[in-house]
Amino acid sequence: MVKKNLVIAHGGGPTPVINASLAGVIMEAQKHTKIDKILAARGGIEGLLAGNLTDLSDMSPEDIDLLKNTPGSAIGTCRYKVTEKDYSRTTDVLQKHNIGYFFYNGGNDSMDTCHKVSLLANDIAVIGIPKTIDNDLGGTDHCPGFGSAARYAAVTALELGMDIRALPIHVCVLEIMGRNAGWLVGATALARTQGFKAPQLICFPERPFDEGKFLNDVQRLWDSQKGIVIAASEGLVDHKGNTIADSGLTDGFGHKIPGGVAQTLSNLIISKLHIKSRSEKPGLIGRASKLLVSPVDREEAFEAGKISVQQAASGKTGFMVGIKRLSNDPYRVKFELVELDKVANYEKKLPDHFINADGNNVTDEFIEYCRPLTGGDFPDYFNIDNYE
Amino acid sequence: MVKKNLVIAHGGGPTPVINASLAGVIMEAQKHTKIDKILAARGGIEGLLAGNLTDLSDMSPEDIDLLKNTPGSAIGTCRYKVTEKDYSRTTDVLQKHNIGYFFYNGGNDSMDTCHKVSLLANDIAVIGIPKTIDNDLGGTDHCPGFGSAARYAAVTALELGMDIRALPIHVCVLEIMGRNAGWLVGATALARTQGFKAPQLICFPERPFDEGKFLNDVQRLWDSQKGIVIAASEGLVDHKGNTIADSGLTDGFGHKIPGGVAQTLSNLIISKLHIKSRSEKPGLIGRASKLLVSPVDREEAFEAGKISVQQAASGKTGFMVGIKRLSNDPYRVKFELVELDKVANYEKKLPDHFINADGNNVTDEFIEYCRPLTGGDFPDYFNIDNYE
Repeated sequence: MVKKNLVIAHGGGPTPVINASLAGVIMEAQKHTKIDKILAARGGIEGLLAGNLTDLSDMSPEDIDLLKNTPGSAIGTCRYKVTEKDYSRTTDVLQKHNIGYFFYNGGNDSMDTCHKVSLLANDIAVIGIPKTIDNDLGGTDHCPGFGSAARYAAVTALELGMDIRALPIHVCVLEIMGRNAGWLVGATALARTQGFKAPQLICFPERPFDEGKFLNDVQRLWDSQKGIVIAASEGLVDHKGNTIADSGLTDGFGHKIPGGVAQTLSNLIISKLHIKSRSEKPGLIGRASKLLVSPVDREEAFEAGKISVQQAASGKTGFMVGIKRLSNDPYRVKFELVELDKVANYEKKLPDHFINADGNNVTDEFIEYCRPLTGGDFPDYFNIDNYE
Repeated sequence: MVKKNLVIAHGGGPTPVINASLAGVIMEAQKHTKIDKILAARGGIEGLLAGNLTDLSDMSPEDIDLLKNTPGSAIGTCRYKVTEKDYSRTTDVLQKHNIGYFFYNGGNDSMDTCHKVSLLANDIAVIGIPKTIDNDLGGTDHCPGFGSAARYAAVTALELGMDIRALPIHVCVLEIMGRNAGWLVGATALARTQGFKAPQLICFPERPFDEGKFLNDVQRLWDSQKGIVIAASEGLVDHKGNTIADSGLTDGFGHKIPGGVAQTLSNLIISKLHIKSRSEKPGLIGRASKLLVSPVDREEAFEAGKISVQQAASGKTGFMVGIKRLSNDPYRVKFELVELDKVANYEKKLPDHFINADGNNVTDEFIEYCRPLTGGDFPDYFNIDNYE
């Protein structure tokens, strides 16, 4: 039997569970006798091209378990897109290190790189492992990483709502990641549980920001209740597609420095409605929390890693491991292979049937879609409205 | 035996454990036969003046336990300072509701209100319960609420550092609460554990912000390592005492709208050093997290509530329950009574011996002071630098 080495690299931003997929790859690969070394590229495909590899073959079960439960990317990552000029170097490196199995864990840009590598390397099994907190990857019902970031977004909106309503002097705008897709900001709607009502308003990047309508919504809410939380996507744009958060500043090269969406909205509420307002922006913290990982998401990420190795070992190449939902209650999924060229470079936005007609809330259908991914019940809180 | 009612109110911003003190008050008061009803003012002293009271006398042990483990202020709070014009109304309300025991849970402003009530009401036992995440209250080694917010600040800096170093293209500025005191921003130094190095720089409100020195520090760090986290206090001021975060905007009444400190520093790094930078501002989220409560802090808050009732029942009045540290290892404290007029309106800054000579880090002495308050070990993370 010809033994070949395995290499795995991470692409794009880290997630709370990208290491869980890595743990799944390592644990599964250790079982396959035809896989020799288990190598990790340090710093994504750029690290691979530079030959920056670490041998993880003998990782202990304890370390694999700790890795599975660690957010961030333990082996680093990059935002580099492979282009034609890198092709010969890529094949050289793969050959030099006797690679037979190549795994790239990432989002839509990374799946493009993964697809290119699969076309270049005929004798190598190339499999993509899906990953993005933004959930904007095609070919899969949802993407590992999203469920945990959604749990963070929802629990954070809930806890912020509890804080704000205790001293209800502000409208508080909470900025949520997700780039151009509203999946994550929509997930804040799950905070409305245990009798709590925040967020009272959601702003999606799929709906052009309309200042007049927004201010009407805020004033109407303020007139009827205090302690309001607005969840706003970092990707909010106006009717022309420009960010609403222009800081007015430029960097040393003349490029615009973006401002914060939440702070922009907060300033608008202060200056136009004369209502006190503040903004919070957890930003990257929202994709790095160990304690708010969704157990469902972690296990799916781990499985996706394991299944990638199984499929590559059985000779499959040029696919991404996708997730197909079989049922919502009980929540059941199966993993399936999706051709890489069908997912590369495609950005899956939040569809219309998940946003209400008014454009400021999700639909019940979205709640049903999202809830199981966040891993079941949130922590319990005392709510005096439920008392007696 | 003359039975009298008890009333408790919360003042100032909520903390993750202010409800734990409330739970301690309720649990203890239920044991005292001379205490009749246990009343909570809804919305702080303002709620009390408006006669907005809720009867919590019969709260079940299960609800008390849930309350003890719930961040935010379950009974609301306010920022209202009692002045002479409220005196007669205050005594009227206390008399009307047959109050014999008055508890105010808050920071230095609230202790001022508590002191005034103690002078007004001769036949009422008035006790202050300390509370502030800022830790700027005098008369006590530390203040309930601080340990949990410190745990949040440290774990968040740790997790943010893990995320940032995986894709080390930015300097990331993390904004930390604490108003004019550097206790909380200093606590981020506890993140340097398990082989992790963030935050690499700390900016204290006790040290006037010096742009040149700051930029030198950042450039020097960037030249030697990537993936840098800077922890910056929300209260940073320049040599004249003015906030460094002026948004340049005014509200409808001509008052300045403050900008964000972290975003201001981030913009500075981009425009002056041409290094990519971003900022995160968890803000109120940092005082509202259930999962990052310090168990030590929660128990101390609970004890402070219980002891307040014991002291009031034994006839003490005009005091705050303070905490005196007996030893660090093992960590031991005792509770003691501090005269209210000695703590009212005083703001305890981070002392010089807790800040290093360069003004950009804490001292080991601060780490020893702070660590036990955060409740012991943080979650475990896999760090590839420790692997092999």
